[in-house]
Amino acid sequence: MAGDWESAVVRRFLQRPGSGRGVLRGIGDDAALLDLPAGEVLAVSMDTIVEGKHFPKHLADSSAIGYLALAVNLSDLAATAATPYAAFLSLTIPEADDVWLQAFATGFHELAELHGVELAGGDITCGPRTISVTVCGSVPQQEALARNSAKPGDLVYVTGSLGGAALGYSHMRGDAPVLDDEQLASCMQRLLRPQPRIAEGLCLRQVASSCTDLSDGLSRNLSLLLEASGCGADIYLQKLPLDENVASLIPPPQCWQMALAFGGDYELCCTVPAKKAYLLDDRNFSLVGEVCTTPGLRFVKPDGGLYKAGGGYSHFAV
Amino acid sequence: MAGDWESAVVRRFLQRPGSGRGVLRGIGDDAALLDLPAGEVLAVSMDTIVEGKHFPKHLADSSAIGYLALAVNLSDLAATAATPYAAFLSLTIPEADDVWLQAFATGFHELAELHGVELAGGDITCGPRTISVTVCGSVPQQEALARNSAKPGDLVYVTGSLGGAALGYSHMRGDAPVLDDEQLASCMQRLLRPQPRIAEGLCLRQVASSCTDLSDGLSRNLSLLLEASGCGADIYLQKLPLDENVASLIPPPQCWQMALAFGGDYELCCTVPAKKAYLLDDRNFSLVGEVCTTPGLRFVKPDGGLYKAGGGYSHFAV
Repeated sequence: MAGDWESAVVRRFLQRPGSGRGVLRGIGDDAALLDLPAGEVLAVSMDTIVEGKHFPKHLADSSAIGYLALAVNLSDLAATAATPYAAFLSLTIPEADDVWLQAFATGFHELAELHGVELAGGDITCGPRTISVTVCGSVPQQEALARNSAKPGDLVYVTGSLGGAALGYSHMRGDAPVLDDEQLASCMQRLLRPQPRIAEGLCLRQVASSCTDLSDGLSRNLSLLLEASGCGADIYLQKLPLDENVASLIPPPQCWQMALAFGGDYELCCTVPAKKAYLLDDRNFSLVGEVCTTPGLRFVKPDGGLYKAGGGYSHFAV
Repeated sequence: MAGDWESAVVRRFLQRPGSGRGVLRGIGDDAALLDLPAGEVLAVSMDTIVEGKHFPKHLADSSAIGYLALAVNLSDLAATAATPYAAFLSLTIPEADDVWLQAFATGFHELAELHGVELAGGDITCGPRTISVTVCGSVPQQEALARNSAKPGDLVYVTGSLGGAALGYSHMRGDAPVLDDEQLASCMQRLLRPQPRIAEGLCLRQVASSCTDLSDGLSRNLSLLLEASGCGADIYLQKLPLDENVASLIPPPQCWQMALAFGGDYELCCTVPAKKAYLLDDRNFSLVGEVCTTPGLRFVKPDGGLYKAGGGYSHFAV
């Protein structure tokens, strides 16, 4: 970070006392210095969110943007079974707006503190609103999860629930059914403040054979995982853990489409050898299907027929 | 990285065989996995360049943009005396343009390969052209350089030469003197393809007491270093290593302004205890002044008077 205005923004809004975990030198120099727990390797992910694409233009509450920018990145570390500890933020904004910056920083740090993540560096630039975050975590090398190691016979699980973010997006576009206050709050929370599944990712160390996050929807992300692993899968639609509002308000097949094709739920999808499946009992995981040798991803309807999911949405098309 | 178009772009343009150094898992999964040489710590920096701000709009040759996006980041690692080994690229572009992408990737990898850096991850998004890069390097903890440890009596050095990038920028704005082909090529090279001073940074391990890169110009970056160190400095203008074209074409005081206030040279500025100064003899360093206890940064003219440098330029004001 450099520049006088930039230094002032960092001091006023972004800098916080360090978490002490792994960050030897944080914000304020040319580079941060990080340590690694003995015997672990570094997991790094970088994702960008763009106004009008990943979050709506003129969103009144910029704390949601700060939260979301970090959440989409932590979700990638969750899928790797890593413990996050440091983040780098590159903030491109059209103007220096103290109210916007304060709320942005509040949202970012709310989530960062929940997961023991220290903001260790980055930069601030003037330009069209674009936020890049890089997150660093650590994981014992043998326990890091990947996409390319699912095996036929493994069971397929997803965390949490699916479709809530799509319902929130549908509401913003004006084509959702009428929602009461509680339903509205719930689905907007799912859309704008997804919970990165860090704890669930850690549960999967030495348990899952492969994992991915659902940043682009179950249909696309699981397809990529299966392709990387050289196998296929059958997913049973009646087993999908639908968001409760989606389940009560949206009939099939639209509810399936919301659960499968919208890239905003940020749940995890993993494959688990059958003999280890009991380790996920009573946790935040739902069994949705099985890996097989036949290539491709099939969604099986309750009547036994196949359902073809549409492509993943682009959120907030510009 | 995810998404079908994104995956294709990664495969076609961005993915290269790994360097084998420290990157255990590269592009293509939710997170990359990096190792660290035993006894070293991780140095991380993240910088963004924005069209119309850090590079001109409608720049015909996008290889310069790919090069520059990585160069500005490697310069931060150079200032930390770290050895770079991995980079993460977040590419936001308005459309999928194969010609643009191919040249961008060529420029990026040209510099990456020169420094043994593997592109290990990132993402690609549709939006206003903005490029964020995060670089990871390693350095023995005790040898990492910082900004806050200059001491009175230390000598001040800069690498390479100063002012060439400002001359290139001046030419682009149409207010430079007439340049012959060789002069034009030289100053545009300085502006668009700055050389990150990685080798010079490594020379400074166990030698320099502090270091910064000149991303915002000597005046601003050295001021920040002195402020962080709680001391001041006198810099002698006749000792500045002016770019040869600047020296021959631009009279004082404009040549000083170009050397001091333009944020594009990406040289290093370091402070060195006098007793270690001999270690920089015959290397790419010029002695330009001395650290003292009196706060502030003073530029001393050949006649002994003081010169007041203007603020750092914003490159390519939008």
